[in-house]
Amino acid sequence: MRNYLSEKVVALEPSGIRKFFDVVSEMPDAISLGVGEPDFDTPWSVREAGITSLEGGKTFYTSNAGLKELRHEISKYMERKYQMVYHPDHEILVSVGGSEGIDVAMRTILNPGDEVIVAQPCFVSYLPCVIMAGGVPVTVSLREEDKFKLKKEQLEEAVTDKTKAIFISYPNNPTGAIMTKEDLEPIAQFAEEHDLMVISDEIYAEMTYGRKHVSIGSLPGMKDRCIIINGFSKAFAMTGWRLGYVAAPRMIMEQMVKVHQYCIMAAPTTSQYAAIEALRSCDEEVEEMCISYDQRRRYLVHALKEMGLDCFEPEGAFYIFPSIKKFGMTSEEFATRLLQEEKIAIVPGSAFGECGEGYLRVSYAYSIDELKEALSRLEKFIKRLEK
Amino acid sequence: MRNYLSEKVVALEPSGIRKFFDVVSEMPDAISLGVGEPDFDTPWSVREAGITSLEGGKTFYTSNAGLKELRHEISKYMERKYQMVYHPDHEILVSVGGSEGIDVAMRTILNPGDEVIVAQPCFVSYLPCVIMAGGVPVTVSLREEDKFKLKKEQLEEAVTDKTKAIFISYPNNPTGAIMTKEDLEPIAQFAEEHDLMVISDEIYAEMTYGRKHVSIGSLPGMKDRCIIINGFSKAFAMTGWRLGYVAAPRMIMEQMVKVHQYCIMAAPTTSQYAAIEALRSCDEEVEEMCISYDQRRRYLVHALKEMGLDCFEPEGAFYIFPSIKKFGMTSEEFATRLLQEEKIAIVPGSAFGECGEGYLRVSYAYSIDELKEALSRLEKFIKRLEK
Repeated sequence: MRNYLSEKVVALEPSGIRKFFDVVSEMPDAISLGVGEPDFDTPWSVREAGITSLEGGKTFYTSNAGLKELRHEISKYMERKYQMVYHPDHEILVSVGGSEGIDVAMRTILNPGDEVIVAQPCFVSYLPCVIMAGGVPVTVSLREEDKFKLKKEQLEEAVTDKTKAIFISYPNNPTGAIMTKEDLEPIAQFAEEHDLMVISDEIYAEMTYGRKHVSIGSLPGMKDRCIIINGFSKAFAMTGWRLGYVAAPRMIMEQMVKVHQYCIMAAPTTSQYAAIEALRSCDEEVEEMCISYDQRRRYLVHALKEMGLDCFEPEGAFYIFPSIKKFGMTSEEFATRLLQEEKIAIVPGSAFGECGEGYLRVSYAYSIDELKEALSRLEKFIKRLEK
Repeated sequence: MRNYLSEKVVALEPSGIRKFFDVVSEMPDAISLGVGEPDFDTPWSVREAGITSLEGGKTFYTSNAGLKELRHEISKYMERKYQMVYHPDHEILVSVGGSEGIDVAMRTILNPGDEVIVAQPCFVSYLPCVIMAGGVPVTVSLREEDKFKLKKEQLEEAVTDKTKAIFISYPNNPTGAIMTKEDLEPIAQFAEEHDLMVISDEIYAEMTYGRKHVSIGSLPGMKDRCIIINGFSKAFAMTGWRLGYVAAPRMIMEQMVKVHQYCIMAAPTTSQYAAIEALRSCDEEVEEMCISYDQRRRYLVHALKEMGLDCFEPEGAFYIFPSIKKFGMTSEEFATRLLQEEKIAIVPGSAFGECGEGYLRVSYAYSIDELKEALSRLEKFIKRLEK
């Protein structure tokens, strides 16, 4: 029998996060600081809205783009939170999490050979989604000395006449970096000069500490060339509901809905009813969760510095990205030994791109007690290394 | 600003079903026999399982391939119902409805230019999914005189040295045709002779009237070259839950899980818990729904013949596919005039491929009362045409 498989798919590396957790799953007594998922249950009022919709028999397909009522709430939310105006009927798509949003965006804009500049380190699905859609990812390495912000000069080095889009994600997974309006302006200007699209994954938009999130799509003239990806997983602790949204100008959205319609049909109905409630009534719960994350963040930054780990201070998401370069090991060696010797799982930075080498991604979507226990084990490990 | 769009996506026709319902949605008093969705609410025990999981705070991601417990139930169900053995850990993927299953299957096996033989008339997403994955669909026209079964001779005419797979779907949407073991054997033999894969969408497997569904994957030697798509939407009246599954040999499944992981992450958690209950305890509810469909089917076949509409007798799914050729109109003209003059929405057969021209797809996922009202209007319309 011949080999039936897609060469592109076979060539994709399995996720480095997953690879690591395959090892972790064999060690039931390990503590994990690895998962990119809020430790909070979904707020009760949101779960209740889902329950009510099930009791009422709302178990049918919604329209392809999502419930009209939900798209209206998303439109209002985006205006209220990010000062962006998207028409609920023509410019918003309800997707199966941010993940589907990323995939559909790539499939809608890429022709074979189109290049997409992807700022790394980044979430593990960006490169595969570009490749599967027929595009060619061109990576740019973010630097700690730039606070992991993307710089216009880096784009200048990466751009070619085949470049179609820039892919960014702030607040950033895995570094915790954010970009302010002033940081984004030169990127926006570059996109205009080179007539590029910007795909902006803003799934951590609600999780910033100290200043509010600014979307590159809200900068003057940028709406027409931006696809904004966001969702409910992180802000509302709704990962399992698989619900996100994409906002884009109408001409692009018309094509995106076509891709979504043929490949997915519609997002889950129960989740859509729940999400309406989330947008309407959960500002307070979201704020409380963010206060918790911020406490943990400050605790972690302090504790890691105390034990001598160089540590970029993150301002968003729920990750911290300490350097382990001084120990003369690769991230994977460090993480593997840490797991074997002290039974703590922390994802090696190299899982998020080559330039993540020499770092660890520590998630603080864990309780302070878990963080304390994990840090005491990490400290023991480091002390042994330093002997 | 340049045109940013994927040429492949722009060239896709919007769904003919959708196009038609855009007209229907402007006519609030129209009766529809158009939707491919059970009219039953999801069985209460299934909804209750979803509710219990929400109350218990099960709102987190599941593993990429789906809850282990659910994959075990799917494995058992497939063996019990279709005599097929798939390993729950390595050969089953829980997907976002049958739709994602189709898309992921295509993306996993197709290289640019690979041909897929698609038997038409068929569900609207098959061709777009082949095209978006870089493949080339080669359509074969099923014939009423063959009871809309696929024939080996038709495959012989369509096969080339670029053919990689055959795409079939029985019980069939839109014709209601089924294929028996004897009908499938020559197709299986052809696939072996030409070393082709078979993608078999069996989403209507539970809805057969008179004889049990036989999967082509259960024929000797066929498991290795089959990808079986199935799901909960139709059998368990769970469309809005967006939950399906794919079964395939391990070597193919490993790659499918990679595509699914990067593009979707995981299927919705609440739906997965509900689906476990559906597989464990809903045989009776499924049977009751099938008895209702069968009553409606017999009523419709009889009534359509009475009013002089030639009508192939469907043995599966919940569609009937009468010919309107004798009226000398296209399907679209007929359906449009029927809607305008009598306010009944029935999808033109041409929405499912060129060879659907001259037919209508009447869904009987509607109550007998609705069917009666719709048929009396249809009869009035036909009588006017015959004058």
